[in-house]
Amino acid sequence: MTVKAYAVTKAKGDFEPFEFELGDIDPYEVDISVESCGICHSDLSMVDDEWGMAQFPLVPGHEVVGKVSAVGDLVSHVKVGDRVGLGWHAGYCMMCDQCMGGDHNLCANAEPTIAGRHGGFADTVRAKAASVVKIPDGLDASEAGPLLCGGIAVFNPMVQVGLSPTGSVGVIGIGGLGHMGLKFAAAWGCHVTAFTSDSKRQEALDMGAHDTINSRDPDAIKAAAGRFDLVLSTVNVPLDWNAVLATLKPRGRLMMPGAVTEPLGINVLPDMMFKQLAVGSSPVGPPVVIRQMLDFAARHNIAPVNEHFPMSKVNDAFEHLRSGKVRYRIVLDRE
Amino acid sequence: MTVKAYAVTKAKGDFEPFEFELGDIDPYEVDISVESCGICHSDLSMVDDEWGMAQFPLVPGHEVVGKVSAVGDLVSHVKVGDRVGLGWHAGYCMMCDQCMGGDHNLCANAEPTIAGRHGGFADTVRAKAASVVKIPDGLDASEAGPLLCGGIAVFNPMVQVGLSPTGSVGVIGIGGLGHMGLKFAAAWGCHVTAFTSDSKRQEALDMGAHDTINSRDPDAIKAAAGRFDLVLSTVNVPLDWNAVLATLKPRGRLMMPGAVTEPLGINVLPDMMFKQLAVGSSPVGPPVVIRQMLDFAARHNIAPVNEHFPMSKVNDAFEHLRSGKVRYRIVLDRE
Repeated sequence: MTVKAYAVTKAKGDFEPFEFELGDIDPYEVDISVESCGICHSDLSMVDDEWGMAQFPLVPGHEVVGKVSAVGDLVSHVKVGDRVGLGWHAGYCMMCDQCMGGDHNLCANAEPTIAGRHGGFADTVRAKAASVVKIPDGLDASEAGPLLCGGIAVFNPMVQVGLSPTGSVGVIGIGGLGHMGLKFAAAWGCHVTAFTSDSKRQEALDMGAHDTINSRDPDAIKAAAGRFDLVLSTVNVPLDWNAVLATLKPRGRLMMPGAVTEPLGINVLPDMMFKQLAVGSSPVGPPVVIRQMLDFAARHNIAPVNEHFPMSKVNDAFEHLRSGKVRYRIVLDRE
Repeated sequence: MTVKAYAVTKAKGDFEPFEFELGDIDPYEVDISVESCGICHSDLSMVDDEWGMAQFPLVPGHEVVGKVSAVGDLVSHVKVGDRVGLGWHAGYCMMCDQCMGGDHNLCANAEPTIAGRHGGFADTVRAKAASVVKIPDGLDASEAGPLLCGGIAVFNPMVQVGLSPTGSVGVIGIGGLGHMGLKFAAAWGCHVTAFTSDSKRQEALDMGAHDTINSRDPDAIKAAAGRFDLVLSTVNVPLDWNAVLATLKPRGRLMMPGAVTEPLGINVLPDMMFKQLAVGSSPVGPPVVIRQMLDFAARHNIAPVNEHFPMSKVNDAFEHLRSGKVRYRIVLDRE
């Protein structure tokens, strides 16, 4: 079978139509006829080969929504015609301690959807069964793509830290990840504060924040001392992390789904020790938590705020992404 | 009532006999007739006024074991003659969210035993009832003092992270805190590894470690990649914390009861994110966990390894402490 896709053939290149052959489907594989695919900042990082792991021609796209077009003989949890999603991982070893313990996203041999295989900027994507999740009927599938990587990246930390609905959550950076963080945390029942610029204040409130803090005002951050049970930092730039720690309540957690590359420079004394704080991070989430997230999103009518481009305009979409002006996420629709 | 104590009258001074008056006992206070008192490194920090919070004359000592000599009218959980212990805190507000939630050690108004009041280098110490814990009958009271600050500092993190007896624990630094960490982790049922110098290897094995890693050998640390569910760092010097993070299993925790003063310089990528790690710390522990620790120590015959000095030789004891040669903890015995 011939797949029609869009690929870059070199780092930082433009997208061009690209065709490749899919061989016979393996017993535990699923083919998805793509309906739409979100664009994540990590697609851009791969196109630019920032991490040195890109293989060209590269077909990005790991926020896939579509309908099952074929299943291997041993696939039982989805059938042809089901609407499904696929995120950052397209397969897991299924046998390591992490997979057997429900932490498939921590599997050392998990297979990224866009490294070593081709992703969702295509008419068809093939993935291993465990990574393919059903899209609940109550969810607007046309907007759901960005939940599958950006969404789970902020939803999973709330699950991992055992966030209580009685808690207070701060979200740093109201962009692709952060705006979903606001919506999830508000629906979770928490008090929600957005750390953002004044220009996004009203949007943050509209998305569920109860208040905002100007993230560029050190005095405002200082005034928020001891307020949060969880701070989700979705930015990838260095901040004064000790000032952020000071905004946590005793037992508070700073979780960093944002891929900051500079060392954190965090102090043990006084706050981390005397308030029993912890700093951590997690990568996307395991399939079972992705399922929980989709059900939660359906129950609460949570959808990312997307700008849509036809898939054939993928170069325009990437130019827009590079401009930094996306509010808040891009979805490519297959024509 | 006149208390006979040993005090320093200025920063870095020598100890001298010192007497002070205790007024009437308040309804929720307990007087302890001191039998012995451990010396903790934080006593030295206070004597040297490293933290700028010492008040002189200063009577250190916050690892107190003794017998209740008087109780206020409303004290119900101990009575005169009971053998009890007192650690870093001599009182809590009892009304804040932390106290009401069982995290008294995180109370913002917790009262240190040796700041704003006088500690255990004395014949009598007065403390508020909630901070006074019974010493179980099965525990050797004469060696128990160091459990009350150094011991709880390493026991509490095992409780806070929910350490499973199936887990693997690394202890960095086999000194006053670390040697108790080895004993606790081994009795907890875990596989225990000591990060220490070759000179302490055999002692570490004797105290319960199943193996050791030479903490000064970067290759040895690299070879331990992915081994530990919990690393307890008891040192107060900077290490290559990213190399330490690499020794953690997925979901692993680095807990830092050691008071490192340099920023940690921890990277989010790759290990913290991709293995879902967290770094944290905690201050001593709440009374309920101190009680659990004492029962646990009694059940498993766990005692710190102490060198004893008569209390009148407190200056000699401090000279020995400053030499860095204590193995592993000093206890002053009242004569």
